[in-house]
Amino acid sequence: MEKDSVRTLMSTRVLVTGTSVRRELLQPLVDAGYTVDNPTHLLSDNELKEALTSTAAYLLGGDEYASRKALSSAKDLKVIAFLGMGFEAFVDAAAATDLRIPITNTPGTLSNAVAELTMGLVLSSTRRLFAYASSYLVGASEAPEKQHDLSAMHVGIVGLGGVGTRIAEILRNGFGSRVSYFSRTRKPKEENRLGLSFANLSQLVREVDLLVVMTPSNEQTKGMIGKDQVTSFRPGLILINSARPDIVDPGALLAGLESGQIGYAAFDAFYEASPDLLERLKAMIPAKLMVTPHLGSLTHEARDGMARKATQSILNILKTGTDPCIVNRI
Amino acid sequence: MEKDSVRTLMSTRVLVTGTSVRRELLQPLVDAGYTVDNPTHLLSDNELKEALTSTAAYLLGGDEYASRKALSSAKDLKVIAFLGMGFEAFVDAAAATDLRIPITNTPGTLSNAVAELTMGLVLSSTRRLFAYASSYLVGASEAPEKQHDLSAMHVGIVGLGGVGTRIAEILRNGFGSRVSYFSRTRKPKEENRLGLSFANLSQLVREVDLLVVMTPSNEQTKGMIGKDQVTSFRPGLILINSARPDIVDPGALLAGLESGQIGYAAFDAFYEASPDLLERLKAMIPAKLMVTPHLGSLTHEARDGMARKATQSILNILKTGTDPCIVNRI
Repeated sequence: MEKDSVRTLMSTRVLVTGTSVRRELLQPLVDAGYTVDNPTHLLSDNELKEALTSTAAYLLGGDEYASRKALSSAKDLKVIAFLGMGFEAFVDAAAATDLRIPITNTPGTLSNAVAELTMGLVLSSTRRLFAYASSYLVGASEAPEKQHDLSAMHVGIVGLGGVGTRIAEILRNGFGSRVSYFSRTRKPKEENRLGLSFANLSQLVREVDLLVVMTPSNEQTKGMIGKDQVTSFRPGLILINSARPDIVDPGALLAGLESGQIGYAAFDAFYEASPDLLERLKAMIPAKLMVTPHLGSLTHEARDGMARKATQSILNILKTGTDPCIVNRI
Repeated sequence: MEKDSVRTLMSTRVLVTGTSVRRELLQPLVDAGYTVDNPTHLLSDNELKEALTSTAAYLLGGDEYASRKALSSAKDLKVIAFLGMGFEAFVDAAAATDLRIPITNTPGTLSNAVAELTMGLVLSSTRRLFAYASSYLVGASEAPEKQHDLSAMHVGIVGLGGVGTRIAEILRNGFGSRVSYFSRTRKPKEENRLGLSFANLSQLVREVDLLVVMTPSNEQTKGMIGKDQVTSFRPGLILINSARPDIVDPGALLAGLESGQIGYAAFDAFYEASPDLLERLKAMIPAKLMVTPHLGSLTHEARDGMARKATQSILNILKTGTDPCIVNRI
């Protein structure tokens, strides 16, 4: 009898990793009869394996990697709910699929936060705010130069997913810029709603004054803005990349900044490139380049939204066996 | 006869000071039969007096001051067209009025440029972009902290003129923030059009998460954000001042930044305050303060718009004797 009650207790356990989820957002799990276990340290592979052995749901919010080994004895695990979008770096998706464990992510919850961060990089670049504000730090002081109104610019967006669409909304409804986009699939509904034009990539990069790169990082998109694209930019183009840096080839970026083909660039994360290349890129800061440390989705609203969505996915799957946010084919 | 032709030539002369007006924007004056004289150096008081003696219109785009003396023998001068809004620092308006010379300025032409600059400061502050981007300059690197979405903030605007209204449009239509405002006169039309709430100043500063100061600088507005206002801020308020700095009392700003009552501040111009106070304020850069060198209206579009408007005012007055942009009572 003691063994049975332990067994019951364990199969209603939800493991939450990471420290970013506010306690009160996990309350719906508690209210539904689950026990929440939220270790505050980074679990080793063995610790994660041990913890998952007796867990019904795993809210993946930490920096652990759920390896095939860690998942192998997770007999009770009904769902891995990833906090964010890019789950691939945090869970062996093939292993989870083999084990018929659904993985969910949290689409939509971070679109506004990343779009706002992107708009901050856009306006910091169009008006060279970081460069000029830095003069108070580094002691330089040149007479500032005239720039261009964002409202008078033709903006191109590469990738019209949730974030790209929100950026287009802000640009069209708030600033009144002309906006074109490239995306794997055309979005006629968004074109009509927001007054966007579709262009293929080579056309887009030739025509716009400011280019926003907002596309997932994968083998297809790595280096998609390379030498061919940069050399076809209008001279002085402003390049904003708040997606993963390697979508823009670092050598092409450096060459574009050095030649003036790129007037200013702003990235929300920096490359892991060769030390020499990195040094030469860093020499462009602040006059022609600004880099922020991956701030995109780092807002209370986005993080709370992710936690609410992940919690709801867990409850849906535990109750009904399915959820709209499942990303693997089980 | 020679004297007469010289006399005719001189009375159709337009003096343009400063170097910021593109030649082609002055073409309408030439087309209307006027001779444009655009000296490239800063005129002394005597040189300006001499030049104005034989001038029909003065397009005031330089850093000269049109003193009473300089205006005293401007017998043919029909209009002083100031390039921008705050003409008071560049012309003795009382003297011009005494001499029945109309002064015009260029309302509306800079609203969008200043509003975009302000939005850049807003997003640089909400997400601490300047502070985090500076870490690549000064070598610091702390783990970034969660901030708040602008769309989730209650924003207050002090001053709902052309710029303030454009800021409200961008915030409401682009970002969806809640916006309240204080202005000497209520603007029910804008309240309805944009969904704004009116609040008196003491109420506004108590209730908002982010405060944008956008009001002309004069004896009434100097220090209007002072100790009483700052101490009633919600802790961590973000303060944006893209108007003249002295609308915010510098001592109150420093105290607010030091106590944390002000979470971040961004100014588009810096004080002429005591060296000690300035040093203590500068010590807040970049962690809690950013300052840009008065970039507000510094865009090609704004400057061209001003030149077009000033040129049109000159033509209107020379042809009809009046213009909608006259600012003095003649």
